Amino acid sequence: MSEQTSAMSEQGNFFEDFRLGQTIRHATPRTVTLGDVATYNALFGARFAVQSADTFAQAIGYPRSPIDDLLVFHIVFGKTVPDISLNAVANLGYANCRFLKAVYPGDTLTAASEVIGLKQNSNGKTGIVYVRSRGFNQAGDEVLDYVRWVMVRKRDESAKAPAESVPDLPRQVDASALGAACPKIDGKSYDTTLAGSARKFADYKAGEKIDHVAGVTVEEAEHMMATRLYQNTARLHFDQFNAGKGRFGKRLIYGGHAISLARALSFNRLENAFHVAAINGGRHVNPLFAGGTVFAWSEILACADVPGRSDIGALRVRTLATKDRPCADFPDRKNDGEYDEAVILDLDYWVVLPR
Amino acid sequence: MSEQTSAMSEQGNFFEDFRLGQTIRHATPRTVTLGDVATYNALFGARFAVQSADTFAQAIGYPRSPIDDLLVFHIVFGKTVPDISLNAVANLGYANCRFLKAVYPGDTLTAASEVIGLKQNSNGKTGIVYVRSRGFNQAGDEVLDYVRWVMVRKRDESAKAPAESVPDLPRQVDASALGAACPKIDGKSYDTTLAGSARKFADYKAGEKIDHVAGVTVEEAEHMMATRLYQNTARLHFDQFNAGKGRFGKRLIYGGHAISLARALSFNRLENAFHVAAINGGRHVNPLFAGGTVFAWSEILACADVPGRSDIGALRVRTLATKDRPCADFPDRKNDGEYDEAVILDLDYWVVLPR
Amino acid sequence: MSEQTSAMSEQGNFFEDFRLGQTIRHATPRTVTLGDVATYNALFGARFAVQSADTFAQAIGYPRSPIDDLLVFHIVFGKTVPDISLNAVANLGYANCRFLKAVYPGDTLTAASEVIGLKQNSNGKTGIVYVRSRGFNQAGDEVLDYVRWVMVRKRDESAKAPAESVPDLPRQVDASALGAACPKIDGKSYDTTLAGSARKFADYKAGEKIDHVAGVTVEEAEHMMATRLYQNTARLHFDQFNAGKGRFGKRLIYGGHAISLARALSFNRLENAFHVAAINGGRHVNPLFAGGTVFAWSEILACADVPGRSDIGALRVRTLATKDRPCADFPDRKNDGEYDEAVILDLDYWVVLPR
Repeated sequence: MSEQTSAMSEQGNFFEDFRLGQTIRHATPRTVTLGDVATYNALFGARFAVQSADTFAQAIGYPRSPIDDLLVFHIVFGKTVPDISLNAVANLGYANCRFLKAVYPGDTLTAASEVIGLKQNSNGKTGIVYVRSRGFNQAGDEVLDYVRWVMVRKRDESAKAPAESVPDLPRQVDASALGAACPKIDGKSYDTTLAGSARKFADYKAGEKIDHVAGVTVEEAEHMMATRLYQNTARLHFDQFNAGKGRFGKRLIYGGHAISLARALSFNRLENAFHVAAINGGRHVNPLFAGGTVFAWSEILACADVPGRSDIGALRVRTLATKDRPCADFPDRKNDGEYDEAVILDLDYWVVLPR
Repeated sequence: MSEQTSAMSEQGNFFEDFRLGQTIRHATPRTVTLGDVATYNALFGARFAVQSADTFAQAIGYPRSPIDDLLVFHIVFGKTVPDISLNAVANLGYANCRFLKAVYPGDTLTAASEVIGLKQNSNGKTGIVYVRSRGFNQAGDEVLDYVRWVMVRKRDESAKAPAESVPDLPRQVDASALGAACPKIDGKSYDTTLAGSARKFADYKAGEKIDHVAGVTVEEAEHMMATRLYQNTARLHFDQFNAGKGRFGKRLIYGGHAISLARALSFNRLENAFHVAAINGGRHVNPLFAGGTVFAWSEILACADVPGRSDIGALRVRTLATKDRPCADFPDRKNDGEYDEAVILDLDYWVVLPR
Repeated sequence: MSEQTSAMSEQGNFFEDFRLGQTIRHATPRTVTLGDVATYNALFGARFAVQSADTFAQAIGYPRSPIDDLLVFHIVFGKTVPDISLNAVANLGYANCRFLKAVYPGDTLTAASEVIGLKQNSNGKTGIVYVRSRGFNQAGDEVLDYVRWVMVRKRDESAKAPAESVPDLPRQVDASALGAACPKIDGKSYDTTLAGSARKFADYKAGEKIDHVAGVTVEEAEHMMATRLYQNTARLHFDQFNAGKGRFGKRLIYGGHAISLARALSFNRLENAFHVAAINGGRHVNPLFAGGTVFAWSEILACADVPGRSDIGALRVRTLATKDRPCADFPDRKNDGEYDEAVILDLDYWVVLPR
């Protein structure tokens, strides 16, 4: 770790501002509250019982309802934006994202990133920055750890290219790394009626495809409120005056919004998948704009034991979200390898369920 | 009570899935928080002092501000949707709705329903399901009890009709059943200036009509956020893609949204009606869509003593809400018995006021 | 103080209803909660660390994160609306606004106003009412004190004009009056990296102009939710049915919404201006409507020591907000004294920063 700096400029960092091994402590610590939970619920309508009711959470072993995993992700991600991706052309991917400790109302989150890879593009105008970002609670415990890579503009096209360094990233998080944020679950006290389904870990099979059925239309006020809740300042989400002159003519919705919508929709037939333990990778296949209606379907990629845990099992799930296209026939990549044009998100992640 | 089952399928129950006497424990327990209160306030802007300020509530005998009665109703109602009304064609009516115990931030609500009536329609395609739904807090105390009946589609039109059974429902809740959710009020400490009006129970007369004056326009983001806050999953409120092909071409706003809007508007000249004690009946006369501006007026149907209570009196109020039509001339049923076409809601309920 | 009355009528007060020296206790006390904070954050996206994280606030001397100063202002202001400005033609100005005590989640706010000036306009149809409004917490401590003046319609144009009385108002709050709401700050524990910038009090100079760069588009749902959160009932913000027939054809956005947007935008390059200590004056130069994109820039008018305080210094800042016009060239009054037509807000206020 060669430096401890935060650019945190209103102009953000450009490609040539990043150095391999550089570490950045991000600004704006954030106490997460029951108010944030309510706003998040109003925006996404999640129904997983563990996060919805303290009584349910306590019955199975949590001290109280934890903060929704994706809300933690979005808050930590939001902190990284001013330093990492204010000048990003595209958010290219995620890897090795692990939720390491449950976050509760009243906890304060901070974030830091390390530059773990740099690769200038052949056009000389942009480059790819790989960062490992981590979120911490007020005790300094790590709650989240993930890698993302973004394509960032150069300020000065003549700036010298850095030595190329591309990190070796895992295709998936190993099942042995799951469950750190999940206390030992008392399965006898897990009330499947209250949770909304009797289907537990053993009831799913690799290869199974699930249509989540419902669709939800996104409004401008909603995605902006969500993205501000996370203190994510990326301008393209908020500024119609400039967006109107741009490539899309519209405000682009924060990619994480589609992830949260898909997760909430996935409750239908994944009712007991109460915890997102890890994200193996994800791709924002197409942009989403207000007025679009989001649908989702999932494929169970694998069913895995979690080493040392007899209380829970893990499903590796691939969830695809679409816009303006129901998913009864599971729209996916086509024969030519290209995605169905309605697909906006392809997310590969691990959830845990009671056994 | 013949069964303990929850269909809780993403497909919902159809008419032939219901059995007389069947009981259903609904999914997704919900801890109600100050965050929910704030979101609800931002969406409806209620100004009743008891619910707005802990100090005011404590001065008159509450341990702290209770949760708005209608927020409790919507949350309990929301839980019943996946099991009862996901395949409803219409929400036909409410009866005998009583608020039985105050709900406070931190309380966790669950809900259960019993099928108390079934009547297949003569077209053989739908039937009416009568359910008694009840909400409970974490101690198992009943906080809400109401009957509603909905017209539900049959999955299979050839399914045999059940024996017809229509419950005998009271036209109104008796005044002796009111007040269970309201502690003894210390009238001397009830500050009418802070509450916004000197008009107490004795200042109203049966037959009095009240124009609530103000109007409020509804946006798509608002009604969807409210309805998600209640974890109400009825798809027609959220999915423009499919709604656009339907009967209205638009997302239909949850009927309860109009109830909450009307209640908030009714603060003008019912400032001290601090608690909705019961709902005698209600009808969603016309659908409401985003962009509509809601107005309301009320008629005092009766002024009643509450047996055993010298601190409070009850007004039986009928509130009508309209869209895009101010209510200075009290739009109502016309001479032919049909409602004025602007009317969207006709709600008959009891409120309590200090004496 | 000649009277203790609250009109609090659904019709509001007209010009001839006000009396010099009259005092009004406003209705609807309000407990401010973490829920309100979250809703406010979702609507404005502020990033000042003191208000964002309990840990940060505690490290420098606060017991916990205080409520955003402007949220306090809007809530107190909202209470005054039914009595003072329901029949206002225009909100003309503010003076001598001082934040006197920090407000924390759980505090309950009430408000009272005194009529300190009256001046009928020569047209005989309207008059100007000057009020001093004050906000109090549950202990009776004054938390906010400000003067505003509004042009109010007469109910009856033939009503006799009152004796003209125009108060002598300070052009600015004296620096010696600043800081009452700010505890002694432990500068060594003020982490500028977490706060987002190393620029402290000494790094600003009078005359410096700052472009806050980002723009944010306002939606109808957002400004209505904000204004309802404050229980501000001014009808022109909510009622499209009537607004559609009016001067603008649209709902007018509450002026305070632009103030909060500008404050949130001002984080870019005023990152450590953690507390609005006073508002010297302000003018809503042009109306704002949904769909407009708000930009802002600031001028440092003065850098002042706060008598008796070695921990903080004060910047007198003038922030101008525009609609649909970026501020890189600092749009302001033109040579003829008129404002650039894009300007919507001209606010003169004091912020404090750590030294």
